[in-house]
Order: sequence, then structure tokens, then C-alpha cells
Amino acid sequence: MDLETRTHAEHADELRLWLRLLSCSQHIEQLVSRRLRVQHGTTLPRFDLMAQLERHPEGLLMRELSARMMVSGGNVTGITDQLEARGDVQRLADPSDRRAWRVQLTAQGRRAFLAMAAEHEEWIVEAFAGLNPSEIKSLLKLLSKLKTHAASLAANSMEETTT
Amino acid sequence: MDLETRTHAEHADELRLWLRLLSCSQHIEQLVSRRLRVQHGTTLPRFDLMAQLERHPEGLLMRELSARMMVSGGNVTGITDQLEARGDVQRLADPSDRRAWRVQLTAQGRRAFLAMAAEHEEWIVEAFAGLNPSEIKSLLKLLSKLKTHAASLAANSMEETTT
Repeated sequence: MDLETRTHAEHADELRLWLRLLSCSQHIEQLVSRRLRVQHGTTLPRFDLMAQLERHPEGLLMRELSARMMVSGGNVTGITDQLEARGDVQRLADPSDRRAWRVQLTAQGRRAFLAMAAEHEEWIVEAFAGLNPSEIKSLLKLLSKLKTHAASLAANSMEETTT
Repeated sequence: MDLETRTHAEHADELRLWLRLLSCSQHIEQLVSRRLRVQHGTTLPRFDLMAQLERHPEGLLMRELSARMMVSGGNVTGITDQLEARGDVQRLADPSDRRAWRVQLTAQGRRAFLAMAAEHEEWIVEAFAGLNPSEIKSLLKLLSKLKTHAASLAANSMEETTT
């Protein structure tokens, strides 16, 4: 029995839901990536990294940054190098650990990020404009339930790897 | 006004929804990636590429494959090379275009894929097990509406780039 046949049989809804979730993420990421490139000459992973730093004015260690990134497709060290070359972030030695570097937004980086973030917010509102406010509330609730369950499974799967 | 403050103000729900959607995808991708690696010694992009080929027994051109991939983080030519070296796919010259190559699953690749797909299906069912059947139906419906709207915006944004 091939994938298509099985998909239409037993667990049709879960597989279809997973593919639909991925499609939605893909379309929105595509829209945001393209506009960031055309209107701001930057990339989604760079924007994402700056967003994480903006929430942590004290700076973040490289491994904290990696763990917090929301989009894939970028190596954190490489993106940090690019942003440092543009003057948008700086690396600071961590006084408590000589081998660790903290990354921080510069004042210029923070201004650049806030300007992009305001537009990014409008694009996201536009992306979800096909849903009315009560549909948005329902979707938030359903995804919250999904997230809690999936996060605990993902965390447990780390132990599967090491045993 | 910083991102956090703005997030809690005007368009709180849309931004929160976008981050939640990304988190859900991330957790499920993480779970599936880890199990594919530990249990089958393969990666999610390889599995995804094989899934696309399984639906197209006649084979796909490289650019068709790129367009159909559901996960990011892999270069299609590189993944095809790896799968060809394992004997799971083959490249065939396209009779209608001498410069184009079609990629096809081999019989061995098809068997390997179907074995993984059966387990993958169980993992996806497990990932969505936090939702009951009626919640799954609602989520399918809401995401379908979101997908239609986001896909048309993403398609239009291609024209923004070229004008």
C-alpha cells in the first residue's frame, strides 16, 4: 500500500494536518523572507537573531542564542559575524567565563531592528487577515494545546537518543 | 516602545499566533528528525525528498523536487547525491530535454521509504495525540483557511520583488 493510499485510510487527518501546518509556516516564512530581503536587504535568520537579542538587553551566550532561534537555515556563528561586520551586534567577553562570549545588540542594531519589527508586525497581521478575531482565538488555543504536547514529546525524544 | 511592549499591545494575537505556529512545527520536526536519525540513520530532508519521489513514480526534475520539499535545511542536489550513493534513487536523462535529469526512487529506495513512512505516520499521530478528533477537525479547517490566504500573499510577494 503506498503513502497516498495509506494517507487516505487510517490516520488521514493527522498526516494531512502536519503537512498543512508545514505549508502555512512555509508560505508565511516565504512572504516575510522576501520582504526582508527586498525592503531591508536582510534575511529571516538575521532578523530572528536580532529579535532574540532585543528581548535580552544583557546579551546572550552563543548556545543560548542557538536554542532560542525560531527559524532554521542559518548557522548562528556565521549570522553573528555578518551582523558584527555591519555594526549591528557586538561580542563581549563574559566576566564569569573566559571562554564564553556574550552577544549584544548595539544601539544602531537596536534602532535597525525596531524599524524592521514594526513592518514585520504589519506583514504578520496581513498574513493572518484571512481569519477573523474569533478564529484567531480558536487557533491560538488549539496550537497552545498542540505545543504543550509536542514540546514534551520532543523533550522526551532527547532521552531516547541517549539510552 | 520595545517589541515586548508592542507585542502586548495592538496586534498581540497575530504575533503570538505566528510564534506559536513556528514552535509547533519546530517541536514536531525535532521529534521526527531525532527518531529518523536514531532509528533509521537518515535525516528529515532525505525522508522528505524520498516522500516527494514516492508520490511521483515517473520521477521529478530537480527544480520540481526543490519546489515540492516541505522542510528547509537541505540542498536538493546534495541530498540527491547522498541518496544516489546509497542506491535509494537514480538519475535518468530526460528524453525531451538533454540538459534535464529526472530523479526516481529505486525499488530498494521505495522499500526503505515505505518502512520509514509507516513509523513516521505513528510519530505524527503521537505528536497530535494531545488533541481530540473534533479539535483535529477544527484545526484542519482553520489552517486550511490560513493556508489559502497566506499562499496567495506569498505568490503576490514574488511580483513585488520583480517590479
